[in-house]
Amino acid sequence: VDDWAVIEGEPTVASVGEGAALAAVFPRLAASRERIIGPGDDAAVLAAPDGRVVITVDTMIEGPDFRRAFSSPSDVGWKLAATNLSDVAAMGARPSALVVALAVPPDTPVRVLEGIADGLRNACATLAPGCGIEGGDLARADVVTAAVTAFGDLEGREPVLRGGARPGDVVALSGRLGEAARGLALLFEHGMRAAAARAADAVDAQLRPRPPIADGVAAARAGATAMLDVSDGLVLDARRIARASSVAIDLEASAIQSILADTAGYALGDLERALEGGEDHGLLATFPPDVALPGAFRPIGRVTAGEGVLVDGAPYGGRGGWDPFRV
Amino acid sequence: VDDWAVIEGEPTVASVGEGAALAAVFPRLAASRERIIGPGDDAAVLAAPDGRVVITVDTMIEGPDFRRAFSSPSDVGWKLAATNLSDVAAMGARPSALVVALAVPPDTPVRVLEGIADGLRNACATLAPGCGIEGGDLARADVVTAAVTAFGDLEGREPVLRGGARPGDVVALSGRLGEAARGLALLFEHGMRAAAARAADAVDAQLRPRPPIADGVAAARAGATAMLDVSDGLVLDARRIARASSVAIDLEASAIQSILADTAGYALGDLERALEGGEDHGLLATFPPDVALPGAFRPIGRVTAGEGVLVDGAPYGGRGGWDPFRV
Repeated sequence: VDDWAVIEGEPTVASVGEGAALAAVFPRLAASRERIIGPGDDAAVLAAPDGRVVITVDTMIEGPDFRRAFSSPSDVGWKLAATNLSDVAAMGARPSALVVALAVPPDTPVRVLEGIADGLRNACATLAPGCGIEGGDLARADVVTAAVTAFGDLEGREPVLRGGARPGDVVALSGRLGEAARGLALLFEHGMRAAAARAADAVDAQLRPRPPIADGVAAARAGATAMLDVSDGLVLDARRIARASSVAIDLEASAIQSILADTAGYALGDLERALEGGEDHGLLATFPPDVALPGAFRPIGRVTAGEGVLVDGAPYGGRGGWDPFRV
Repeated sequence: VDDWAVIEGEPTVASVGEGAALAAVFPRLAASRERIIGPGDDAAVLAAPDGRVVITVDTMIEGPDFRRAFSSPSDVGWKLAATNLSDVAAMGARPSALVVALAVPPDTPVRVLEGIADGLRNACATLAPGCGIEGGDLARADVVTAAVTAFGDLEGREPVLRGGARPGDVVALSGRLGEAARGLALLFEHGMRAAAARAADAVDAQLRPRPPIADGVAAARAGATAMLDVSDGLVLDARRIARASSVAIDLEASAIQSILADTAGYALGDLERALEGGEDHGLLATFPPDVALPGAFRPIGRVTAGEGVLVDGAPYGGRGGWDPFRV
């Protein structure tokens, strides 16, 4: 994606300085509904009407986490927001605001910062209306580096943690499986243009994920006993619920196949990718057996006594999942 | 400082993986008094008894913001916490918690992460008791990169902003002037060992700043009309209050000299450094003329009608201040 290149003579962060670069960006960012004091002072002030605030932080760095060849600045902003909103949703909270620590090389066009800002704003507006950007910091780095801290409002509910699953609960998923990993594989194999022509949905899932944010609150209201954001792969993340809850999670291959069958471009062999591929940012939750599953949640297994993750009753051997330090 | 080097055979982030590295670090971090749900789930939950939360974010990157030759891992953690606590204090709030997004090269010893954690913990314990670390993220980068988001509790008070200074107000400072800049100059000129031998206080001010955190709340209680953290230099930051408040700030050279005279290693020529040097992280505030200055605040000038920053009534010509993109 060539939106990153400097156009001869255009303003860069170095040519205008930190203050003017931030001044160009902040007007593009919508305020959150909870804004009391927005960007521009030493700190922002956000309303926390519930008397508690949900907080999560996640980083994206050029190289390990995205590449200029695949992602536009706006894609980077979108994904930054989407992945953090998803962590808030996984607590059963409504995302209320973000703050962004961005570091860029000095020769970065101000236009690139504006693109990142547009992506952040559009992801919030689309995925979590009412959530805005309340502050930021601009620093200097050799590669584009962004850390987003996201906030959420529990609206009087208890947070849904990883440790509440009980034997007999239904395991359910809202979202896709293996699509983001398929998109990444296609991008690496065929490059941007050919990958997008071949499987636009998978490339979109990788570059501009659309986590089912509203289903986080819906799950909490329906009585979910445990929940998390599937960022590192279904098996690895299911194992986290199993460990925190001291239970086993038994996934049903046919239920996962039926989620895959609804996905354009489904192919045999995708089951392993569905079980191990990361970055889909679906919500994995457990519900008492008598609950009508809310939103887009579909059953994919059962909580049983025991430990670890099973598929059709047999321990799943694959490690699965993504560790940035082990690639 | 050689604490950064890998010792043959010791565990690194790459050898143990992200999960185990975080597991080694989190037990070293004290909980904040407001913790409801700490690290380990998709997000943390922090009490916000005031119904509002103060939020600020700041980044430190190896190279532009610190060097392994001068700062130990623990120094980096300390400064990360101190600079962010200072932004919370500058709103008149009590710092309640931090979250940390850290990115490191894969061959970073786990011991280095532990050192950074120790610095974060010790700075919070020393400068802002009750403030703890509630979450984090560990990513991969070519250089050590850290973004800290800090939170604060207004305890029912209104935040002290930059825009409230009125002609007739007293301009006052709590903290040092020019010390951190002197420390940095000595480090670059003489190297670590000789600089520390020559002026340990100045080197400390640069590497392990001790902003007067409690004076933020004290200033708010005393009725400060405007306040900010002097991170970029006295003149540049005073100009920010002047602009936001539509007033002029007239600094008194003799009052600044008298603050300098209390500083070990004071020398002629330091006035310019006191006016322009960054990173001292004192608190600059304005108070109604009848207020008894709280804590360690000392008068350094007056708010007058007009604009910009003056010294002894004459417009100050120097730009002053620090812009990471213009060095």
